[in-house]
Amino acid sequence: MAPAYLSGDKAAIEEFLSRFDTFLFDCDGVLWSGDHLFPKVPETLEMLRSRGKRLVFVTNNSTKSRADYKKKFDKLGIPAEVNEVFGSSYSAAVYIARILKLPAPKNKVFVLGESGIEQELDAEGVPYIGGTDPAFRRDIEQSDFDNLANGSALDPDVGVVLIGLDFHVNYLKLATAYQYLQRGVIFLATNTDSSLPMAHSLFPGAGAVGAGVVKAIGKEPLSLGKPSQAMMDAVEGKFHFDRSRTCMVGDRMNTDIQFGIDGKLGGTLAVLTGVSKKEEFLAEGAPTVPAAYVDSLGDLLG
Amino acid sequence: MAPAYLSGDKAAIEEFLSRFDTFLFDCDGVLWSGDHLFPKVPETLEMLRSRGKRLVFVTNNSTKSRADYKKKFDKLGIPAEVNEVFGSSYSAAVYIARILKLPAPKNKVFVLGESGIEQELDAEGVPYIGGTDPAFRRDIEQSDFDNLANGSALDPDVGVVLIGLDFHVNYLKLATAYQYLQRGVIFLATNTDSSLPMAHSLFPGAGAVGAGVVKAIGKEPLSLGKPSQAMMDAVEGKFHFDRSRTCMVGDRMNTDIQFGIDGKLGGTLAVLTGVSKKEEFLAEGAPTVPAAYVDSLGDLLG
Repeated sequence: MAPAYLSGDKAAIEEFLSRFDTFLFDCDGVLWSGDHLFPKVPETLEMLRSRGKRLVFVTNNSTKSRADYKKKFDKLGIPAEVNEVFGSSYSAAVYIARILKLPAPKNKVFVLGESGIEQELDAEGVPYIGGTDPAFRRDIEQSDFDNLANGSALDPDVGVVLIGLDFHVNYLKLATAYQYLQRGVIFLATNTDSSLPMAHSLFPGAGAVGAGVVKAIGKEPLSLGKPSQAMMDAVEGKFHFDRSRTCMVGDRMNTDIQFGIDGKLGGTLAVLTGVSKKEEFLAEGAPTVPAAYVDSLGDLLG
Repeated sequence: MAPAYLSGDKAAIEEFLSRFDTFLFDCDGVLWSGDHLFPKVPETLEMLRSRGKRLVFVTNNSTKSRADYKKKFDKLGIPAEVNEVFGSSYSAAVYIARILKLPAPKNKVFVLGESGIEQELDAEGVPYIGGTDPAFRRDIEQSDFDNLANGSALDPDVGVVLIGLDFHVNYLKLATAYQYLQRGVIFLATNTDSSLPMAHSLFPGAGAVGAGVVKAIGKEPLSLGKPSQAMMDAVEGKFHFDRSRTCMVGDRMNTDIQFGIDGKLGGTLAVLTGVSKKEEFLAEGAPTVPAAYVDSLGDLLG
């Protein structure tokens, strides 16, 4: 079915909003782009809250913890609570700590990623190595090849490789992750987004940073970010919403909107301020089509 | 058809060798592993030469130039000439200079790789940036995101992104390659090997190093290494052999042996001193099956 275009149509907006109690929001490309807040975003969220809607911010950005996100919301003047934020790093940490429940000490995580992942692992009491450790932020040397191959540079307690967005990715980290995986540890990713919108352009996302490891080992990680339903299950486990009265709002068809469709939510709403253009879902035979779309989130104010 | 097992079978070896005038050899996993020369390799190559066979060393390792390879042959005591070596960096340089023939100055190459690529581009008179330039061996900064996005950090003369094995891969290089590709430049790879045999183990290969760029842009590069027939055409263009009387010798089914089969060579010979195990090609329904195999190259001495 063709998606409903809501911008400028007060009656259609009213009808659409009345169908939902909970709104799951993607952040980047929906609320803001980088450090640029989109017009009327705080007012729109305030309007939804005033009507008794519950808001959850579901983000694949693994470089930030929920606490980091709260700071960003504050800085941009968007009213939100830490508990309303559900990031892919948090999702991964919860999965490792509460679902995998590997017996200590064999529950250590080798992290390819930034401090957001480390903070969430810390919060869930999961031990880790790698991440922002300066010992891994250097060129590989001949002795590393030998010591990785013979295992002496590996920690025998590592049971999981977790890949997220790492701005400090290098050959040593890729090789180390690959070595653990060759020894059979569990392979997880915070998310597998191919690109990252920054500075009005696209940069390599977590999926691109981790692609080297995926290519080397020849298998995909379990993703704990959108559109993986492992994330939907985790969000629902925390917020206990009625899926039929929940709407996913996002800018990317293949992550946000697919996430809502696969999760059998009552609706999905695309905004055109991010990655996907309307041609992508209006085209004949488009693989992912939202229930409705607006030019920008602020259009919901009518 | 099941491959013939030649080790220890003098008559079968004689018959097999008599069918070919030219032997294309993979190097790593066939002649040596890292710095370890396999037994009787120089004697075997000498035996083949004494029977008038032409030898060509066809390697996907892009970190070494033909001159670097010659040094390695010398060091290990393997008699060979620079002109007998055909590496994927040389293959890529020849393709860019003689086939693509982009009009100067728009023929500059952004290199993700080591000095082997640079040497071969130099030899073919192709200008390049990136590669081993220390300016790219650093962390990405906020200003890089801005300057890459607005193009001010990009060279307008770049017409090709060339990906090879880079032990100094980092986010800045991946992002820069991705930015050029978003602007529509030609996408090449020296090879797309997922792994690199080192220290009796496997490390990320050129295909893994470049996988981040492939994932981000969502398309595959044209590979100038095995099993791409672009490389076979280049090898044939230089050596003018009769394909029906040429045999490819290698350790990897999905690169070496597939390369020979796709190239309609008269035969393929697998050796078991490298990546592929015999179970891989003896299995029912194996995708790539060599014409014959030996435990190690030296077994051809009988």
